[in-house]
Amino acid sequence: MELLLPNERIDDLQRSGRRIIQDPARFCFGMDAVLLSGFARAARGEKAADLGTGTGIIPILMEARYPGVHFTGLEIQEESADMARRSVALNGRQEEIRILTGDIKEASKLLGSGCFDLVTSNPPYMTASHGLVNPDQAKAIARHEILCSLEDVVREASGLLRTGGRFYMVHRPFRLVEIFREMTRYKLEPKRMRLVYPYRDREPNMVLIEGIRGGGPMLKMESPLIIYESPGVYTQEVKEIYGY
Amino acid sequence: MELLLPNERIDDLQRSGRRIIQDPARFCFGMDAVLLSGFARAARGEKAADLGTGTGIIPILMEARYPGVHFTGLEIQEESADMARRSVALNGRQEEIRILTGDIKEASKLLGSGCFDLVTSNPPYMTASHGLVNPDQAKAIARHEILCSLEDVVREASGLLRTGGRFYMVHRPFRLVEIFREMTRYKLEPKRMRLVYPYRDREPNMVLIEGIRGGGPMLKMESPLIIYESPGVYTQEVKEIYGY
Repeated sequence: MELLLPNERIDDLQRSGRRIIQDPARFCFGMDAVLLSGFARAARGEKAADLGTGTGIIPILMEARYPGVHFTGLEIQEESADMARRSVALNGRQEEIRILTGDIKEASKLLGSGCFDLVTSNPPYMTASHGLVNPDQAKAIARHEILCSLEDVVREASGLLRTGGRFYMVHRPFRLVEIFREMTRYKLEPKRMRLVYPYRDREPNMVLIEGIRGGGPMLKMESPLIIYESPGVYTQEVKEIYGY
Repeated sequence: MELLLPNERIDDLQRSGRRIIQDPARFCFGMDAVLLSGFARAARGEKAADLGTGTGIIPILMEARYPGVHFTGLEIQEESADMARRSVALNGRQEEIRILTGDIKEASKLLGSGCFDLVTSNPPYMTASHGLVNPDQAKAIARHEILCSLEDVVREASGLLRTGGRFYMVHRPFRLVEIFREMTRYKLEPKRMRLVYPYRDREPNMVLIEGIRGGGPMLKMESPLIIYESPGVYTQEVKEIYGY
């Protein structure tokens, strides 16, 4: 197995020496994945699945933070899955993280119903018809609901989780009504939520959500997560999430 | 008509000379009503209804801000409705504001289906079974869903509004999932939302929501509304809403 293909590069994740292989021409992970990995919680002995893992950023970051958890990343694009596998090998974490090539729409069939304690996902934010679709296929699939919809992600996450298991997702606030509707439809009661504001006086541009499989009603809203103290300067909290 | 009953007092609302009669032993308006009146929008010539108007605080504040709008306040507790009527008279606004004694559960029957451009409500936040119920009946009815539920408020607001009409509500964030569910069930699509945080690093304790009767999906989340700059000191924005 070649470690690096043409155009690929290795980035240091600034967390316990973890590194990741990315191809800037295809897709690079964003702050959303980092914030989700900071928002999600796992405990030793648990099994986690990441739906639409891309280059594996979420399992790689979370594995560094939560030793003793086993992660499965599911990715439909073989090139991305291959890159993720090489990153896992680069970090020597083949025991802790497995990457499967497969379709989110069949996740619970592929990975097993009710077998997971937590599921994470940083799904495409835009509907297939919403906004400009990137002409580059890898980026378009990551950003637009071309190969899977919000409902597919939520339904499969629900199918994968045991009762009481947790679903963690990052998404756009403008779709919150649909997010709540799909989550409650599939018995993932929204229990914890945090809005991410780029500056303290701006509109939020991301929402972090935790749902509990079979949970009762009662949402806990957390303090606002502010990204920038001033232009180009992260707040202390974001620095801590990034692990600086 | 007596202007003031025993225990009642007149408070200056600091807005165009408007005043309100309150009985501290019964119920005094809170910041929620003030913030809702700042969040809601009305235009000359429109008809507005306020469900569960209490002492009439929301129509009185909004009428000062929006001349040429006609307000109807509906209140089930006769003592509160009477106080509201006396406040309206005190301000000389009997032409602009009418106060009816009646049940929210029958609002669209009492006031007319599809006849309103906007509906406001600062309903009870707690379910009948949730938390300590105040032994004082007036306070209990204002805070707990004893005489009407969230679903009643949303259903009747929807019934009162014309297509394209706006529903404005202040509520507690922990019930946001139910709020969205009831609003979409009754065709009041959530379109605008703002979270109110007591301090910039705390959890939000209020949510302001606008729904459009028959609107399409797409929620606009606004910047965070922070109440206190430091203990006892309001932020500039809150001072402006209060009209200082």
